[in-house]
Amino acid sequence: MDNLYRERIEALRTVMRRRGWDAVILTGSDPHASEYLAPRWKQVEWLSGFTGEAGDLVITADHAGLWTDTRYFIQALRQLEGTGIELHKMRVPEQVPIPEWLADRFVRKDVVVVAVDGLCQPVSAVQDLQSAFAATGRSDDPEEGYYYRIVDVPDLPDTLWSDRPAVPRTPITLVPPEVAGESRRQRLEWLRKALAGQLCDAALITSLDEIAWLLNVRGSDIDFNPMVISYLLVTEEEVLWFVRKDAFDDRDDDTTLDSFATLEEEGFRVLPYDEVQLSLNDWLGDGRINRLFVDPSTLNWSLYNLLSQSGRLCTGPSPVQLRKAVKNPTEIEGMRRAHRQDGVAMELFLYWLEKTVLGDKVITERTASTKLGALRAACPDYLGDSFETISAYGPGAALPHYSTPVKNAPELEAKGLYLCDSGGQYSCGTTDITRTVPLGPCTPLEREDYTLVLKGHIALAMAVFPEGTAGCQIDALARNPLWSRKRNFGHGTGHGVGFYLGVHEGPQDIRQNFNRQPLLPGMITSDEPGIYREGLFGVRHENLLLCVEAGRNDFGRWLAFEPLTLCHFDTSILVRELLTPAEIDWLNAYHERVYRTLAPELPSEVARWLRDKTAAI
Amino acid sequence: MDNLYRERIEALRTVMRRRGWDAVILTGSDPHASEYLAPRWKQVEWLSGFTGEAGDLVITADHAGLWTDTRYFIQALRQLEGTGIELHKMRVPEQVPIPEWLADRFVRKDVVVVAVDGLCQPVSAVQDLQSAFAATGRSDDPEEGYYYRIVDVPDLPDTLWSDRPAVPRTPITLVPPEVAGESRRQRLEWLRKALAGQLCDAALITSLDEIAWLLNVRGSDIDFNPMVISYLLVTEEEVLWFVRKDAFDDRDDDTTLDSFATLEEEGFRVLPYDEVQLSLNDWLGDGRINRLFVDPSTLNWSLYNLLSQSGRLCTGPSPVQLRKAVKNPTEIEGMRRAHRQDGVAMELFLYWLEKTVLGDKVITERTASTKLGALRAACPDYLGDSFETISAYGPGAALPHYSTPVKNAPELEAKGLYLCDSGGQYSCGTTDITRTVPLGPCTPLEREDYTLVLKGHIALAMAVFPEGTAGCQIDALARNPLWSRKRNFGHGTGHGVGFYLGVHEGPQDIRQNFNRQPLLPGMITSDEPGIYREGLFGVRHENLLLCVEAGRNDFGRWLAFEPLTLCHFDTSILVRELLTPAEIDWLNAYHERVYRTLAPELPSEVARWLRDKTAAI
Repeated sequence: MDNLYRERIEALRTVMRRRGWDAVILTGSDPHASEYLAPRWKQVEWLSGFTGEAGDLVITADHAGLWTDTRYFIQALRQLEGTGIELHKMRVPEQVPIPEWLADRFVRKDVVVVAVDGLCQPVSAVQDLQSAFAATGRSDDPEEGYYYRIVDVPDLPDTLWSDRPAVPRTPITLVPPEVAGESRRQRLEWLRKALAGQLCDAALITSLDEIAWLLNVRGSDIDFNPMVISYLLVTEEEVLWFVRKDAFDDRDDDTTLDSFATLEEEGFRVLPYDEVQLSLNDWLGDGRINRLFVDPSTLNWSLYNLLSQSGRLCTGPSPVQLRKAVKNPTEIEGMRRAHRQDGVAMELFLYWLEKTVLGDKVITERTASTKLGALRAACPDYLGDSFETISAYGPGAALPHYSTPVKNAPELEAKGLYLCDSGGQYSCGTTDITRTVPLGPCTPLEREDYTLVLKGHIALAMAVFPEGTAGCQIDALARNPLWSRKRNFGHGTGHGVGFYLGVHEGPQDIRQNFNRQPLLPGMITSDEPGIYREGLFGVRHENLLLCVEAGRNDFGRWLAFEPLTLCHFDTSILVRELLTPAEIDWLNAYHERVYRTLAPELPSEVARWLRDKTAAI
Repeated sequence: MDNLYRERIEALRTVMRRRGWDAVILTGSDPHASEYLAPRWKQVEWLSGFTGEAGDLVITADHAGLWTDTRYFIQALRQLEGTGIELHKMRVPEQVPIPEWLADRFVRKDVVVVAVDGLCQPVSAVQDLQSAFAATGRSDDPEEGYYYRIVDVPDLPDTLWSDRPAVPRTPITLVPPEVAGESRRQRLEWLRKALAGQLCDAALITSLDEIAWLLNVRGSDIDFNPMVISYLLVTEEEVLWFVRKDAFDDRDDDTTLDSFATLEEEGFRVLPYDEVQLSLNDWLGDGRINRLFVDPSTLNWSLYNLLSQSGRLCTGPSPVQLRKAVKNPTEIEGMRRAHRQDGVAMELFLYWLEKTVLGDKVITERTASTKLGALRAACPDYLGDSFETISAYGPGAALPHYSTPVKNAPELEAKGLYLCDSGGQYSCGTTDITRTVPLGPCTPLEREDYTLVLKGHIALAMAVFPEGTAGCQIDALARNPLWSRKRNFGHGTGHGVGFYLGVHEGPQDIRQNFNRQPLLPGMITSDEPGIYREGLFGVRHENLLLCVEAGRNDFGRWLAFEPLTLCHFDTSILVRELLTPAEIDWLNAYHERVYRTLAPELPSEVARWLRDKTAAI
């Protein structure tokens, strides 16, 4: 396999020499800056074998490097072994991002030519590259002698990747307004007002989850992400959805054709995906659009290059992202419903796990994840998983983003810790839950780490904070119980979660960054501290938290969290002396709620078992 | 008095009408962006009566407004009463800063002319104003019709302020290298290397504390701030200090003349303050300086306007600020020495306070602050206070930046809480301490607030955190015990403190902002949470904390804090049930250290009293 990647890189270098490129950047991204990728855009995996969800490649004549963050260091080191590709660490203090690395690497070379697939580079990434070159005094003007050129090669991987998959076309469904809490009309009206406030008469929406939210449409073009590869143009009068190579093709299924028909009846225009450039050039060219709003963080560079010539672009963060993050009461009710179903599946799974591990049947990480998948699939509103289940026993769990092997997965033994991070897409919401459970006797270190992580989880869940507080300002609450014993974790504490959409969404998060977005009532964010011991085990405890109002007094307006996730935490290995009375109270109250909500939906022997598991400590 | 301010504002409006100015901005600042001001630059106080340390005025034909932050709201409302000046609140979620306010105020007017005293406006402030006008589509080009003009009127207050004080000229002393831990030669060599790294061959240092630190000089041109009004030009070969209207004037005292002579002997050039412009234009004009580094946050706009024509400016945050914030071992030893002396003065004061309040002599807030001043003055290395002592009993303490009245100060009674926030300038360091003490019986609310604030103080003092952590990322640790009971405070938790320099210094702080500066070993920052009950009382507990190394393990490198301040916290009114065992351990250990360090230096009856006060709880 390693030779395969070496050969592909060498083939790329041959192209580079022929075309005069000093460097090629291949990103782990698609034309919509999506986090998860359809097979067509897994160019990083194709060239390097790295399967993490965040990674960019830079190839030069004498260097091949993969840039990824803390979540994937161990996985990258393993997957890159023998490929000759070096790991460049991001989200560490000493990080050197690609733009700075390239500018420095070629600092003594007069002319630098960098080729990128502009379709898979958001405008902002190319701007970062331009800034980095400019910072070393390099011009973009060939007249100057010391200059750089960034070459846009749309679909660059096509050069080498002969069997590259096509753009996906999965069935498209509509979300009824009674499920979404708002009709697409209402959402588009809101958007038009927001645009008018920015003096724009149109917007090109490029982010797939924003399009899905605005139109109340869903598909499955990308694994785990119920979205449709498309662009959306919203003008004062019209809505144009650029969605398929051939819209209304007879290869389409009935559901999709019905969805398209409904949209057309409502006055929307459904158009071929590839027509977006031509169509926009028309609108901009003949002045029907005066100022077009685009978000450079999700607009790809190829498209930007075409549109920017009009001089009519207005750029900024899309207003849709924030509005979408604040769930409406119907969405919140749906999320609660999804979490009740998810909780039932999880408790059935944990019950099965405990009984089976104690029995004499051999189970593996894979058996376990398959079982959990089957239990979720039995839930009435379940549509699929929201990401690939992390089913990890012992050392595997030390990789925060472990990928459970399909074959020869490690066997579970009746000792130590098993970690399972999973989630479902339901027609009424999205879930994401991590539980770490003892399969038998645990070491004192396992028990202590388990308890400290739970203290961190509870500290955030119990937090009360003034309005205006951003996630980065309370992230330390989850870390402090770990920090005080000099333990930590290298990933964020919390990410936003969509409503029957991406399991990761912005604009809010809870992590050690400087994101200024305040947490707002209605936002849903995960709470998932962890501790990872390389080669030994990993612990993570994760619930989704709904941000809620907590009253107003002389000191201002207060916010707090309410857990949406319903599933017990194993209390048998807690080091009780490490818990404060307030933490014990929180845990007991949460467990009582879990039991009362789920017991009626569980078989009686599982309900009895859950009564024990949720007994007050 | 109120009519006085109304008259002055009307006189300014007459000038405005004559000169065609739509608005005048007068800042609470001087030509060096100093926080504290020499009398000459107290133009905001002169025009409005407001004496807070942060406040800017905007006068238009029909509006007079003072912009200040949470610390001064109550004070501003009181001092502005009857003046017709409106309070504009800053550091609140709904804040509208001056630039945005002005841009909006005049949005329907074609031409807007704003006059500023460019000497008292850092470049960055004017740039903010320009951006705000540009954001409303307003041009700076009169050809465009809809445009703005910012008029630079150096020493604008001179127009009206006939008895305006002159630039101060206080004695100048030199700090020996054995006290500073480094010679000025070493510091200047370091600066030249830092400049070379930024491809600059010279720097104009405009911030007064940076000049004092670089040259190891001190003065008392500004109350509480041992600095000298001056500019410093550092080139590859030379150092030019622009310091007095007439350098080597025979009006100067011997200390100053000796200091100047020493500097000249060492090869530095001492020049008149006003010559900075002329001299710099020469250096830039004849090419002796190729790229001049300036920090736009402390360079004033008038000077910038003169220098920027050269096209040779290189702007950025001054590297001196960070280097100065990280104290060297000699400075740390000096700070410890200063805090031992300060601790003795504080304990003598608290002893006196307790005995006197119980006696029949009437004492006021002013008597108390005078007594404390006298006790500090008796310390061997004491040179002056580091800010005006806040001596506040009862409701006065509800103003975080209360100013104790000189006459008719409130009397202290043998009940409730007394708050004293004070600090000293010592030849070996700077101190800043707040203690809140019960003078007799306290209400349950007073006791609870007192305890919660101490919990917040201890939480930060006990914090262990990974290297790279910024203050804004741990600020919540101090607030969490308050937040959990829906209480809060409207100021930062901690500010940097200089070494025998400003009691407030950057670049680090600990507050609800998004300051990315990591806390580094050697930095000194205050820890001062509080709770303020308008009309009732206020609580604040403040120590200075030294950031120290706390080891390295699998999870990285760890940092922690060590309190420099030595003075007991009153334990008699603590609500013990609110404290965790870890908090009690911290308090007992701190108190033991306070007693062991200070007792040998105290009269025996005070040492015995302190033994009681510091008894383990």
